[in-house]
Amino acid sequence: MKSIGVFDSGVGGLTVVRELIRQLPNENIVYFGDTARVPYGIKSRETVIRFSIENILFLLKQDVKLICVACNTASSFALPVIKNYFRAPIIGVITPGVREAVYASQNKRIGVIGTKGTINSRTYETEIKQLDPKAKVVSASCPLFVPFVEEGWLSGEVVLSVVRGYLKPLKDAGVDTVILGCTHYPLLKPVIQQVLGKDVVLIDSAKQVACEVKKILSSEDLLNRGKGGRPAYRPGRHSFYVSDNPEWFSGLAQRFLGRQLKNVKKVNNV
Amino acid sequence: MKSIGVFDSGVGGLTVVRELIRQLPNENIVYFGDTARVPYGIKSRETVIRFSIENILFLLKQDVKLICVACNTASSFALPVIKNYFRAPIIGVITPGVREAVYASQNKRIGVIGTKGTINSRTYETEIKQLDPKAKVVSASCPLFVPFVEEGWLSGEVVLSVVRGYLKPLKDAGVDTVILGCTHYPLLKPVIQQVLGKDVVLIDSAKQVACEVKKILSSEDLLNRGKGGRPAYRPGRHSFYVSDNPEWFSGLAQRFLGRQLKNVKKVNNV
Repeated sequence: MKSIGVFDSGVGGLTVVRELIRQLPNENIVYFGDTARVPYGIKSRETVIRFSIENILFLLKQDVKLICVACNTASSFALPVIKNYFRAPIIGVITPGVREAVYASQNKRIGVIGTKGTINSRTYETEIKQLDPKAKVVSASCPLFVPFVEEGWLSGEVVLSVVRGYLKPLKDAGVDTVILGCTHYPLLKPVIQQVLGKDVVLIDSAKQVACEVKKILSSEDLLNRGKGGRPAYRPGRHSFYVSDNPEWFSGLAQRFLGRQLKNVKKVNNV
Repeated sequence: MKSIGVFDSGVGGLTVVRELIRQLPNENIVYFGDTARVPYGIKSRETVIRFSIENILFLLKQDVKLICVACNTASSFALPVIKNYFRAPIIGVITPGVREAVYASQNKRIGVIGTKGTINSRTYETEIKQLDPKAKVVSASCPLFVPFVEEGWLSGEVVLSVVRGYLKPLKDAGVDTVILGCTHYPLLKPVIQQVLGKDVVLIDSAKQVACEVKKILSSEDLLNRGKGGRPAYRPGRHSFYVSDNPEWFSGLAQRFLGRQLKNVKKVNNV
């Protein structure tokens, strides 16, 4: 049975895996985290494209039927270039979040937060405007959020103060919907919600991404089924590969995936 | 004329270059910043060794006579393994700082701060104990310091609060000397000094590293001299290479090197 391939620069993409497992429990999943070269958010477009292609080639060797780019920086920079290179469908995390945000926003003022790479690429802005040319988009890069999440700093005075600083332009603009444009940010949801107020809708792309994957697998008749076309009742197998530091990755997995990970394999492909 | 080769995971090593230029103004310097794979501080020993060897091979192609590992993580993990691999002398940033700290400390309680990689390697502790078996060493990793410096957050309430948290064990132990065990940390010197008190001596390795380089070049008769053995009065040439993002590197250079950088060249060697 072919697998769903997922890659991210590191551990953040596990928030997408979590949702894939919830919505597609019978699917096999192969995850690759490029922990030797993490983070991507400060790297150039050209380099992120090169890394993404290498990661996809690794996943293709693992016999995947669909690839999910579970990294907003890679989706912003690489997806527009590489989506037509490969035969397997490639799904990013940008478009599903954009659709949901445009649907959710009442006042058509949409905030986007992400890494420097994601924000500077202006991919979110472009995609939102394509869907709704009248929408006003306010973006902010939040470079300290990833280190905070990876250090387990999810609340407290320091975090609150930094979140307040970063989100001020979004608050000032009166956005009613904010896209969490980085797979790490859902872990800071409580403090972000506290700063923006409870009426602001926070869009976490993971759910929409999993819906999109399900839709495509279904429409291309690629869903994992049992014999005779019946639904497969056997739970899918999940494999996790990293380019460095399997212990560090396993240690953080609980926070992102909601369960412990054993048998994370290190590969020397990059 | 052969050059001094210097490498770092990114931009931090420029604090060492600054001191090399000050102490050895006639020497040519070739710098390589591995900005495609920065940071090293969260990567494994094995991976940091692999990256360091690749960086050294790049520098050797630039015709260098001595290599300076201007990165504490690479010095901690890689130097003990690779120092005998190559013909050119290789100088790290650990030993010169250790010597200075042991010399400076009166009460023989020495603090060390650095990245997770540097602190977990226990290289500082081992080297300090070798020099003074009676010294007490208190170490703390400070994972948010590098993001702070790269974001230009060098003071203010948030930074102060984080510095206080990280340095508490050092303060509690009553250290009188602290090694700034990461090339980024000298930029946080004022706030670190404020938290530890003005009587604590902060050891910034860059100066000692440059002294060591001078000593070795001199003892091996490798100093750049003019014709007939006279001192060369022509200022040295300085070349800067990175594996990604030359603009980002140039933007940060002012902060680390104290002057603007033009003509940073991107190379695709990694």
